[in-house]
Amino acid sequence: MEDLTKQPCVACRKDAPPVTDADIAELHPQVPEWQIVVEDGVRQLVREFRFPNFAQALAFTNAVGQLAEEESHHPRIVTEYGRVEVAWWTHKIGDLHRNDFICAAKTDAAFAFFLATS
Amino acid sequence: MEDLTKQPCVACRKDAPPVTDADIAELHPQVPEWQIVVEDGVRQLVREFRFPNFAQALAFTNAVGQLAEEESHHPRIVTEYGRVEVAWWTHKIGDLHRNDFICAAKTDAAFAFFLATS
Repeated sequence: MEDLTKQPCVACRKDAPPVTDADIAELHPQVPEWQIVVEDGVRQLVREFRFPNFAQALAFTNAVGQLAEEESHHPRIVTEYGRVEVAWWTHKIGDLHRNDFICAAKTDAAFAFFLATS
Repeated sequence: MEDLTKQPCVACRKDAPPVTDADIAELHPQVPEWQIVVEDGVRQLVREFRFPNFAQALAFTNAVGQLAEEESHHPRIVTEYGRVEVAWWTHKIGDLHRNDFICAAKTDAAFAFFLATS
């Protein structure tokens, strides 16, 4: 099984297939910290990250923002004192796509790098 | 009436008084774009800001973050493609304080500056 962090997001069309239950069984164990939640009928991958203050939370928000721009795929990022919540889903299909699992894995990698360097 | 953007946030204690209806009648007209919403029993000032893309939304998030650090008062900032939502409230009192109206006014000023310079 190829590491998700080594895979790029692919351009996504409106008729791109959402992940199936079989896909989730393969992909979710690679990003086990992420919850699959349903908001307004849309499945999302959501994870909370904790920090000791606001400045570090905002710095991580920027790290995720840089990743998002590189992948041309954009999450919702909630930034608060000591806390960042990231949610990935695919607006074009109103559901989860394989891209979202790739970006969740890359967010985990960004967090590991952030912890190691801050 | 002194311009809210000229006033600093004051250090806030747990027994600091929340804004009264009379305070709101004075302060809210100075930040008319902000909605007073109640979330989990806590009054908050909330405003949405729109942008043409993700990068500008993230840049504005950073402008608000810088303001928050300067005031030592920290909002919740939701960053998405083309959209930033800022919510101010005072965690120590679980309610709205005059500080929140000051920070809302300063956020409006930061947005005006952002639009003029980006």
